Amino acid sequence: MMGGDFAPLEAAKGIKKYVKHNANPAHLVLIGNEEQVNICLNELQIDPSSYTLIHASQVIDMHEHPTKALKEKTDSSIAIGFHLLASGKTDAFISAGNTGAMMVGSLFSIKPIEGVLRPSIGAYMPRENGHNGWLMDVGLNADCKPENLVQFAILGSLFVQHVWNVDSPKVALVNIGEEEGKGNLLTQAAYPLLKDCDKINFIGNVEGRDIFLDKADVMVCEGFTGNVILKLAESFYDLTKRRNVEDPFFDKFNFEQYGGVPVLGINKPVIIGHGISGEEAFCNMIQMAEKMIRTDLLEKIKSNFVTSM
Amino acid sequence: MMGGDFAPLEAAKGIKKYVKHNANPAHLVLIGNEEQVNICLNELQIDPSSYTLIHASQVIDMHEHPTKALKEKTDSSIAIGFHLLASGKTDAFISAGNTGAMMVGSLFSIKPIEGVLRPSIGAYMPRENGHNGWLMDVGLNADCKPENLVQFAILGSLFVQHVWNVDSPKVALVNIGEEEGKGNLLTQAAYPLLKDCDKINFIGNVEGRDIFLDKADVMVCEGFTGNVILKLAESFYDLTKRRNVEDPFFDKFNFEQYGGVPVLGINKPVIIGHGISGEEAFCNMIQMAEKMIRTDLLEKIKSNFVTSM
Repeated sequence: MMGGDFAPLEAAKGIKKYVKHNANPAHLVLIGNEEQVNICLNELQIDPSSYTLIHASQVIDMHEHPTKALKEKTDSSIAIGFHLLASGKTDAFISAGNTGAMMVGSLFSIKPIEGVLRPSIGAYMPRENGHNGWLMDVGLNADCKPENLVQFAILGSLFVQHVWNVDSPKVALVNIGEEEGKGNLLTQAAYPLLKDCDKINFIGNVEGRDIFLDKADVMVCEGFTGNVILKLAESFYDLTKRRNVEDPFFDKFNFEQYGGVPVLGINKPVIIGHGISGEEAFCNMIQMAEKMIRTDLLEKIKSNFVTSM
Repeated sequence: MMGGDFAPLEAAKGIKKYVKHNANPAHLVLIGNEEQVNICLNELQIDPSSYTLIHASQVIDMHEHPTKALKEKTDSSIAIGFHLLASGKTDAFISAGNTGAMMVGSLFSIKPIEGVLRPSIGAYMPRENGHNGWLMDVGLNADCKPENLVQFAILGSLFVQHVWNVDSPKVALVNIGEEEGKGNLLTQAAYPLLKDCDKINFIGNVEGRDIFLDKADVMVCEGFTGNVILKLAESFYDLTKRRNVEDPFFDKFNFEQYGGVPVLGINKPVIIGHGISGEEAFCNMIQMAEKMIRTDLLEKIKSNFVTSM
């Protein structure tokens, strides 16, 4: 409840929205400063039977050093959240707080799934037909080996299939040419591995010009290129806003609206939200977590790695 | 004269425009099928004293294999063009023909400047204030070492300084974080080298979101990231066109309009144009070549490499 620039009010609003629009909502465990959170929950008249509030006396600030803060602030909302998740008392953990602390907790408290070399985070890539593509990795893994890209492809494919309900998602490699054999050393080596992987529906390369076309559902790259793509795309949102372009399609390049993204490849559902997440974003994150639990996504991922990697 | 989708008419139109708007135009050596070219030149009533026409009986098609075509079609306009340039009969060579053949000719006929490890091509990155940034490399060098990025920085800096008349161009490293120490192995290693290089005005990192802001005049990266950026930016032009956005600023993401880009780091001025170059593009390319000659850019580049690398 303490994560994000407008904590805890926007989180509380998101909860209200989620509870209101779901006939059978998940039971929510809210972690944060009891007094501050209660003010918001009461003000919004959220049904107390829909949540359990757990007091956290500390908050990890947005600018604190992640590892240090997580180690020292054991009574922070993020530290408690990871403790509850790791010990099985909750089924998923969502926060719009310190991104670094969320990553450190994901990797060291929840830990990678056996066989997953590098957990990864992705990003939505909007298309004009209303669909979204999923680009992965977008910054967690700046240097990758070919096998990492194959694992991103499997992780992204399972996520898109089960959480977005896309049958046999089309997977592509972000590259600088259309044909096999094009690219840098990494993509040249990754292409045949992706082609041979029977866990994904690999359709070949996509180029920079294809990212916002509906060519592939999942697009894999190392986190350097992915991060540049994501931030460049965000800058187009800013450009269209500054130029007074009135077209709701370009609002989709405002990545804050999507809520958050899961850390894929770790043992439990963790969703990291944008610092300036609002009501809609929090509601979306809760729904995503619920979907990940109800579709048993983590077990599906585990079974894809344990048997083969 | 035979390069580009509308050869030789658009090239001829560009020549007319160039000759008309220059009080003291350079003497142009036109290479192509004499009959076809003459029809265009006569139709446009271009002053015959402004050019010398050299017949080429062959044309390298856009889809031919570059090395093979250059070797076999010795009487093609591209092969003759490189021969004239290499032998000093011309001072610069411009073509909108087969890009691969232009690259092969640049690297093997004109050759890299002594000390330049990897010649490179860049691209214009438009800004709202009317300025342009220069991104380099955009695809010629998909895998780079840190020293390559430093050389791109020097080459790009000299180009922008002398051809665009920018004093002490600001040079930045394309990266995925603002502070020194961020990035992948390549950018982490390149940063201190760029910082220590006394031939450039290094200002630090730029991120994807900064590419179209007026932060740096020259932005360096390996050709994989650069190519993805370029093609992604081009796709935004397409998007804004399809969405009927009426704003001349977004037309600047139509990279065809710029004419062409020089191959930097080779011994003579070579400018490679876009296949669908039109009148304006050809005129711009001639002016760029003239500027490169008149400012003695190549000697300036050579003196920066011979003494130190």
